Amino acid sequence: MKHLLYLKELNQRTILKLLAKAETFLSTNNFPPPQDKNLQGITLANLFLEPSTRTRSSFQIAAKRLGADVLNIDEQHSSRTKGETIIDTIRTLEAMGVNYFVVRHKERGILSKIVANVDLGSHVINGGESVDSHPTQGLLDLLTIKKHKKGFDQIKVAIVGDIKHSRVARSLAEGLATMAVKTLTLIAPEEFKPDMKFYPNAEHCKNLDQGLVNADVVVALRVQRERIESLTETMSPDHYFEKYGLTMKRLEPCNDDVIVMHPGPMNRGVEISDEVADGANSVIREQITNGIAIRMALLSMMQAEVMK
Amino acid sequence: MKHLLYLKELNQRTILKLLAKAETFLSTNNFPPPQDKNLQGITLANLFLEPSTRTRSSFQIAAKRLGADVLNIDEQHSSRTKGETIIDTIRTLEAMGVNYFVVRHKERGILSKIVANVDLGSHVINGGESVDSHPTQGLLDLLTIKKHKKGFDQIKVAIVGDIKHSRVARSLAEGLATMAVKTLTLIAPEEFKPDMKFYPNAEHCKNLDQGLVNADVVVALRVQRERIESLTETMSPDHYFEKYGLTMKRLEPCNDDVIVMHPGPMNRGVEISDEVADGANSVIREQITNGIAIRMALLSMMQAEVMK
Amino acid sequence: MKHLLYLKELNQRTILKLLAKAETFLSTNNFPPPQDKNLQGITLANLFLEPSTRTRSSFQIAAKRLGADVLNIDEQHSSRTKGETIIDTIRTLEAMGVNYFVVRHKERGILSKIVANVDLGSHVINGGESVDSHPTQGLLDLLTIKKHKKGFDQIKVAIVGDIKHSRVARSLAEGLATMAVKTLTLIAPEEFKPDMKFYPNAEHCKNLDQGLVNADVVVALRVQRERIESLTETMSPDHYFEKYGLTMKRLEPCNDDVIVMHPGPMNRGVEISDEVADGANSVIREQITNGIAIRMALLSMMQAEVMK
Repeated sequence: MKHLLYLKELNQRTILKLLAKAETFLSTNNFPPPQDKNLQGITLANLFLEPSTRTRSSFQIAAKRLGADVLNIDEQHSSRTKGETIIDTIRTLEAMGVNYFVVRHKERGILSKIVANVDLGSHVINGGESVDSHPTQGLLDLLTIKKHKKGFDQIKVAIVGDIKHSRVARSLAEGLATMAVKTLTLIAPEEFKPDMKFYPNAEHCKNLDQGLVNADVVVALRVQRERIESLTETMSPDHYFEKYGLTMKRLEPCNDDVIVMHPGPMNRGVEISDEVADGANSVIREQITNGIAIRMALLSMMQAEVMK
Repeated sequence: MKHLLYLKELNQRTILKLLAKAETFLSTNNFPPPQDKNLQGITLANLFLEPSTRTRSSFQIAAKRLGADVLNIDEQHSSRTKGETIIDTIRTLEAMGVNYFVVRHKERGILSKIVANVDLGSHVINGGESVDSHPTQGLLDLLTIKKHKKGFDQIKVAIVGDIKHSRVARSLAEGLATMAVKTLTLIAPEEFKPDMKFYPNAEHCKNLDQGLVNADVVVALRVQRERIESLTETMSPDHYFEKYGLTMKRLEPCNDDVIVMHPGPMNRGVEISDEVADGANSVIREQITNGIAIRMALLSMMQAEVMK
Repeated sequence: MKHLLYLKELNQRTILKLLAKAETFLSTNNFPPPQDKNLQGITLANLFLEPSTRTRSSFQIAAKRLGADVLNIDEQHSSRTKGETIIDTIRTLEAMGVNYFVVRHKERGILSKIVANVDLGSHVINGGESVDSHPTQGLLDLLTIKKHKKGFDQIKVAIVGDIKHSRVARSLAEGLATMAVKTLTLIAPEEFKPDMKFYPNAEHCKNLDQGLVNADVVVALRVQRERIESLTETMSPDHYFEKYGLTMKRLEPCNDDVIVMHPGPMNRGVEISDEVADGANSVIREQITNGIAIRMALLSMMQAEVMK
């Protein structure tokens, strides 16, 4: 595990090791004892070419907690405004002594191109690529589920919303497949239904109430207003909320101990109501804390392999 | 003192404690001895939703000097461009382990809303809200006055400029009221005169020469060019300077040992001349150094209460 | 050497000391032993008023490796959007305890103005001024040449491209003059030929093949597309590449062990081909590593003088 590009590349054993390592970090509130801070003297660069607070800050905090220095490269400030390719930017940072690169980029396949061009000593982590992949989000979602449910092979997970354009859904589905989830239901209007070849073990359902029956985990996805309006001429965020918005009432078909997740940032009143977002079933804030832990686990395990 | 929202909420005893603590930091050039760096392992987030160099950098330096890590969240880069509320952004950062939030925001009352929604372990500090409040600026101004004058109850303070739109003036006035200042004179054209209910112990004066008679402290405020031009059709920055600009000559009615303050950034030649800004009576640079000290004092005292 | 404004101000002895110090840093991969981290407790501010990844990150990493804290001031975020002068911004940061200022600015002569206005304890470093000077780039270029060639007085250096608008070329030429380079050839179309009074020991040559004869070092400069198009109505980046682009074939007139340099960011296919940029003669990535080392050497030597 030198790089992390796509969640489907990790086998069950590696995922379980990552989740276990993350849980040891959680046990000390994500403040590791000094001997576990194994990124001292290491520099990590955050190259986010799409806006991000959450993921970028999460990697920054995770890296610092392990002793690393962090360099944030803004799109605006970067040489890329002068026409440099992302690969040349990374090669430049490598020559400065940067060892870890977290990259968010809208271009499909760019992460693979980057990995093909970096130094032997470099580590590349996908911080979100196109609408296809966001593996550390998938991992933190798995960690959150694991902490609340007995076993992946006994649960039903329902993902609700704009699955077609969601790298979050895709990476989570890859992880759930590896973990042999019992049932994965994708709840979305026809227009938001993804190419099901990327979701071989999942079923699609247009109706929210039907899709949520006996769900153990519900994942609400952020829906962009522009995409809602493009659905039909008459579709508005309010209409969308009526059909696909999660409310306490709509959660009734789920199992009693259902947990509700959301990758954030939330559009309250569009895909989720305040009462669900802030309610007893919500584990949304826990996901964020788990995000720090899983990123620390990832960085720490990558670096431990270097040390061997 | 878990949060700092408005200066009027602090009583005289608390203000004096803060000023005394700040003076101990000043005595070591704002480099505290290791045992006083009580923010080790703490993360502070700077959430400045309006541009700022001074206050943001000041909090960053103050927090780092006490051992904290600092996370700067830019408006441009933030999830807020994706429609997230400031409260959700802060809740997210809390879940990442951030403990202190410095917030600058143009919306009136937003700081109170934030405080009503944060975790028990969080600290919220007003870094400038609307045109209403900027309490750490008020505190650093009090510290600067205290270092130069015998007692607040023996001095006359004059604030000159666009009082109506100045959160600096308002917070300073609140602090001076608590410290029982002898006289507070607000010098401004009618259009820049504030609602005097916010300045119960102050007097308003349109004429600069009259207002400055026997002043011990003169505070010049930054005046926005757009606001000057909106005053009257014929008003220009040059005309404004003639009527309200501080020059050495205009300072003659003041007491001999008058000190001149300015919150920065200065519009030289508009509200203040070079000779005053850089002259013997100016304590403008000292204010900035005092700003680091007072912010260190604030953070350090907040954290000391947590430790108890 | 309190400040570094222009490379021509350094004599041969000082340059040699800087290069030697940089080589000691390179010998430990730019990670100095603890006793050489002599910027502990020091704060350096990067004030880049033109976009930059490379130089800004390089100073940031160099300063941190020596133990300093770094404050990055963005143009967008800064008080300068409120009309403050760069000198007032620096004076403000000085009052906050910042000791080192790296400034990139498009205004000719601004660095000298800044130096005339700062505190006795401040250090100002030119991070790129106008089209005139970029001394730390010049120094890293000298270091790169020194590591590959026997002596400056035995080599021919050819600089290719838009010399007229290049602060990189100008600073390198100043350094090469001080180091008594044998031959300096400037290869550029008439429109990109600089005022030769700034290059007293250099010769100008319009033809690439002629100019490269027996070159030991070739420096390709970044050419802005807008400038190419302004050359003649029919000139395109492709035409430019045909006439002045470096390819393996065009390098044939050079000496066998020629090294190829480029300050970055590269426009591949405009001033340089992929095969040259990534080929055996290229030392472009080494330049970047040398850039960290030379900036560490500069900061470390400036601070060592303070300590004396």
